[in-house]
Amino acid sequence: MRSREIRLKTRPDGAPGPETFELAEVEVPSPAPGEVLVRNRWMSVDPYMRSRMIDRPSYVPPFQIGRPLEGGAVGEVVASASQDFTPGDTVMSMLGWREAFTAPAKHLTKLDTRGLPEQAFLGAAGMPGLTAWVGLLKIAEVEQGDTVFVSGAAGAVGSVACQIAKAKGCTVIGSAGGAAKLEFLREIGVDHGINYREEPDLAAALARVAPKGIDVYFDNVGGDHLEAALSAARPFARFALCGAISQYNDLEAAPGPKNLFFVIGKRLKVQGFIVSDHHAEAPNFLRELSGWVGDGKLKWRETVDHGIEAAPGAFSKLFTGGNIGKMLVKLGD
Amino acid sequence: MRSREIRLKTRPDGAPGPETFELAEVEVPSPAPGEVLVRNRWMSVDPYMRSRMIDRPSYVPPFQIGRPLEGGAVGEVVASASQDFTPGDTVMSMLGWREAFTAPAKHLTKLDTRGLPEQAFLGAAGMPGLTAWVGLLKIAEVEQGDTVFVSGAAGAVGSVACQIAKAKGCTVIGSAGGAAKLEFLREIGVDHGINYREEPDLAAALARVAPKGIDVYFDNVGGDHLEAALSAARPFARFALCGAISQYNDLEAAPGPKNLFFVIGKRLKVQGFIVSDHHAEAPNFLRELSGWVGDGKLKWRETVDHGIEAAPGAFSKLFTGGNIGKMLVKLGD
Repeated sequence: MRSREIRLKTRPDGAPGPETFELAEVEVPSPAPGEVLVRNRWMSVDPYMRSRMIDRPSYVPPFQIGRPLEGGAVGEVVASASQDFTPGDTVMSMLGWREAFTAPAKHLTKLDTRGLPEQAFLGAAGMPGLTAWVGLLKIAEVEQGDTVFVSGAAGAVGSVACQIAKAKGCTVIGSAGGAAKLEFLREIGVDHGINYREEPDLAAALARVAPKGIDVYFDNVGGDHLEAALSAARPFARFALCGAISQYNDLEAAPGPKNLFFVIGKRLKVQGFIVSDHHAEAPNFLRELSGWVGDGKLKWRETVDHGIEAAPGAFSKLFTGGNIGKMLVKLGD
Repeated sequence: MRSREIRLKTRPDGAPGPETFELAEVEVPSPAPGEVLVRNRWMSVDPYMRSRMIDRPSYVPPFQIGRPLEGGAVGEVVASASQDFTPGDTVMSMLGWREAFTAPAKHLTKLDTRGLPEQAFLGAAGMPGLTAWVGLLKIAEVEQGDTVFVSGAAGAVGSVACQIAKAKGCTVIGSAGGAAKLEFLREIGVDHGINYREEPDLAAALARVAPKGIDVYFDNVGGDHLEAALSAARPFARFALCGAISQYNDLEAAPGPKNLFFVIGKRLKVQGFIVSDHHAEAPNFLRELSGWVGDGKLKWRETVDHGIEAAPGAFSKLFTGGNIGKMLVKLGD
């Protein structure tokens, strides 16, 4: 079987462009004993992949030049030389940006979709959803009655964070760029949407919708959003730092917020986290998620591009604001 | 009785200077029923007083122009119209920069010195000591075996923090400016002293003495010290932000550290705190402190200036590095 895949061609300097990626076609070997051949139906592009394009020590090793990019994918077992998998099984992998591949069975997880669409396990029911759940409940320790600010609120993680906060009885402020995203925030029950593209002063915008300040900040954006949240924070507010997408393509490290002194004066807790430290919580998350989905309290949106060759463009959309909800690439038919 | 006092004359723009302060002489009234007349023997100058010179909402109200500055003092009851105090009692107050005063009894605390010098209750056994104890144990949750970095390590708070960390079985790195302070750090058992005035690259200095990184950072300084600590942090390190003395006299808010992204990648917990939220812990702190003092594990140093008129200069020394250990002003004989 032939498969096309996207490889890292050069390490990006700033925003990844066409020179960053390379489309290649390979022959997929038949599975050796213990191996499985999978054809992907969906692949995920996620902001954290940007940091893996840099050659530096980090919590995940960097992508290698000339090798296919890695990331979450959902596919179907085509051939199996493992007793754990049967052709037709729906499986999840982290082997990413390729149409098909052969890999040891231990790299695959059989997917029990519990009646949800399979691609939801790359979004609301998968890593992005768990990220939102862990950040809000375990890191920021959100409580009923809190005023919660979520940046990147229309994205895969942010939109779930907003809805979990609503389900927990919070007032939710979400920031996103553009009218279509603001409309989406209204649909998912966000109390106050902030269109950051139309707000020259984010701190003033926050003060307008949350005159008493915020108790929790879930940060996907960094930069001026973080600075505004520090200004808006109430005493003892908790910040869960999840990402800083505004800075991932910076050529030089941007200075931090000018009002970091609020961390002391307001006794803030600012804590970073990475979802892979919390995989043990996945069953608890999925149990709670199922309840919310059943009650109509948790919805999701997908932005879908088609074909493996569309993956680099889909990835770039994450940084230009081109996606609402989970950005996915549909492979095959 | 006559008393001299230091009043706030103008709000400082940058470093406080002679124009900031005013020496005045007043008649101290005899105590009305429920009041007490106190002659101070020691008064404290502390870095947090700088922020009270600015007219802005904060966790403590700003000092008022034309009014005496407030702050910790230890003195002796001279006359009492309260059944709770007797002439000769040693008392602590927060009414500050004055030789003598009359005040309602509720503003005074009778001091049980437990065999310690009375002025220690303005330093290691008082608010600065409690600050070190709370920051290390309650905020940074220090544990045996941790590598702990303390900035401003030769100051009133920092020198106690270093010794508490040693008493808890940690490896301690302390930064301070100048040879005399580094010698003091050796005397109190600090494992690695960093003379920041001779280190063009603080992160490199930290990497030299702690090649495996730091688990805890106790920050009194902010600025480049905080940036270096972020670089040196191990995954899951805890930062207790206590002060940022390098920035208190800044005319414009300085940008934050350029490497704040480490908070996410290293999953750091960065938490600010203010000792006044933790006064309920004072008995626990004093019990533990007494043990350490008895075991010779906790020592302190004082820098003492004399006379109420010396108080503004003593205060300025906090920002120019002119003090080792607790900066005090001795009043009276």
